[in-house]
Amino acid sequence: MIDLVEPLRSGDRRALARLLTAVENERVGVQAALTALYPYTGHAWVIGLTGAPGTGKSSLVTELAKVYRSKGETVAILAVDPTSPFTGGAILGDRIRMRELSGDKGIFIRSMATRGSLGGLARATRDAVRVLDAAGFDRILVETVGAGQSEVEIARAAYTTIVIEAPGLGDDVQAIKAGILEIADVLVVNKADRPGVDSTVRALRTMLELGHPVSREQMVAHHGQAVKVETPTTPNHDFWLPPVIRTVATEGEGIVELVATIEAHRDYLTQANRMHRLEQQQVEMELVDRVRDELVKQLFSVLPAEKLREVVDQVQARSLDPQSAVNQLLAFQQVNVAK
Amino acid sequence: MIDLVEPLRSGDRRALARLLTAVENERVGVQAALTALYPYTGHAWVIGLTGAPGTGKSSLVTELAKVYRSKGETVAILAVDPTSPFTGGAILGDRIRMRELSGDKGIFIRSMATRGSLGGLARATRDAVRVLDAAGFDRILVETVGAGQSEVEIARAAYTTIVIEAPGLGDDVQAIKAGILEIADVLVVNKADRPGVDSTVRALRTMLELGHPVSREQMVAHHGQAVKVETPTTPNHDFWLPPVIRTVATEGEGIVELVATIEAHRDYLTQANRMHRLEQQQVEMELVDRVRDELVKQLFSVLPAEKLREVVDQVQARSLDPQSAVNQLLAFQQVNVAK
Repeated sequence: MIDLVEPLRSGDRRALARLLTAVENERVGVQAALTALYPYTGHAWVIGLTGAPGTGKSSLVTELAKVYRSKGETVAILAVDPTSPFTGGAILGDRIRMRELSGDKGIFIRSMATRGSLGGLARATRDAVRVLDAAGFDRILVETVGAGQSEVEIARAAYTTIVIEAPGLGDDVQAIKAGILEIADVLVVNKADRPGVDSTVRALRTMLELGHPVSREQMVAHHGQAVKVETPTTPNHDFWLPPVIRTVATEGEGIVELVATIEAHRDYLTQANRMHRLEQQQVEMELVDRVRDELVKQLFSVLPAEKLREVVDQVQARSLDPQSAVNQLLAFQQVNVAK
Repeated sequence: MIDLVEPLRSGDRRALARLLTAVENERVGVQAALTALYPYTGHAWVIGLTGAPGTGKSSLVTELAKVYRSKGETVAILAVDPTSPFTGGAILGDRIRMRELSGDKGIFIRSMATRGSLGGLARATRDAVRVLDAAGFDRILVETVGAGQSEVEIARAAYTTIVIEAPGLGDDVQAIKAGILEIADVLVVNKADRPGVDSTVRALRTMLELGHPVSREQMVAHHGQAVKVETPTTPNHDFWLPPVIRTVATEGEGIVELVATIEAHRDYLTQANRMHRLEQQQVEMELVDRVRDELVKQLFSVLPAEKLREVVDQVQARSLDPQSAVNQLLAFQQVNVAK
């Protein structure tokens, strides 16, 4: 599979597609290719977009891609679907709307679904982004449907994270939640021509105020702009205040402002060593995640299946407590020999 | 600390409080006590309650506790606060409303906050529930504020999980989300005397319909009742359809129905080996979680801090790829000697 790296670098789309499939299916041998292409990563600006079904995510992604293309930039779209009985297939259905982008060689669209665990998907997403990055795309748009912990995990692969809302979606069934707002660099209220948009914008701003250590006055003064604010309590630190942007993607409204805001956020990150620190955190989190998965995988590969069943039975029967059961399981641990 | 187990069993509240503090602070020696008290667990019915701030969770918990007390049952309330800038302190402030329960020896109230990780809190919650269970309480109400992944983790310690909503909370800023509905055995719309209650109930039912493999007709026919439904696609399997119950906790309205529903869910679980299977799953998940944490802790305890920094730097500089970095870190792994 390592022989696909050179074709990938010279723009071969079949090599790209095959590598992405290998990443998605955790195919043997893909790791050697990932190792070989890793030095070529770090060029693309990775933008994460998340929002509940019905917020018009795909239209927004399509419009963003069109603006980037008009500037001569190449764009890869990675639609990640953390399949669940609630959301399964939502993203794939939306692909149809992106048809207008097809035929353009500067655009590449790819869907990726959950095979196993959420952790596996987060890992596959990070690796797929690297493949696209090494393939030379200027912008990578990682789109995911907002349905829980998944978008937070997936957002960790992005530099600029955009959270999309829409007014009056299913009455009060909204995907707005604290955890999501904490990862947002930019908030978009799409379908802003619908009734209830003001109340949605207001609600988002209220939640932002709760979540950021700046005064209400600063928040009001700077909302909707890409600014950094120093606060009395944190004089040596500044914040990016996530602006709330109104768009009507189907009409192309607000898209230019959104693109400008993404650029402003990129400028912000590339100043004062911030990008270096962000990437450092992302790498650290990724390594710890991978080490954790690897250790568990190693242990369970040597642990006889009946041993786990046996201790679970004993814990249920109250003849063994959980910690003693854990100690018994850990006894099967083997030393990993580094290669 | 193991000497506290006998007093705990004979109703000594100081021993109980000291053990819970030891669990919360992961005090050395608490494990021996947990091992000693574990055989005495399995008596209490553990009820999880989660909902966003403002849904009236604490009032509802208070009313539930009063009903159980009137039936002569003892009640422990464990209020778990996954502290975050968005939710910090919410639960502790609510404690004041529970004052009317004080003075009753059959009630025990305890708050628990995050010290470190969410994983740590989920673990501490499970252990605290065991301490309360061994202390002989009939009902353990585990209350947590809905703010992300945390309530899902914490719900894993409960047998009956109740998700609480309220109409028109902060316009459309609602904590309703797919992940939460997936863990709900019972849905409560509290503050049901407020405007918008019908739309909240309708929205919840719509989400329930999406999430359960039963027809809309079955869903409509059985909603609000505690029933099991066989479906054509899963003829040998039945489902608990989470009923949606309207309450006005401050007026005591709907509480008797809620208590009856919790009993119905308990009856459902205790039939056809279901409780055994649920507990089996919970034990298995807990063991895997604990093994994972333990393995990572072991590795990082022997890994020199500068080694992690070094590989992160190399990955950032693109001179080392993530998987090779993971292999280098895993080389520090040591064999655990079982005791």
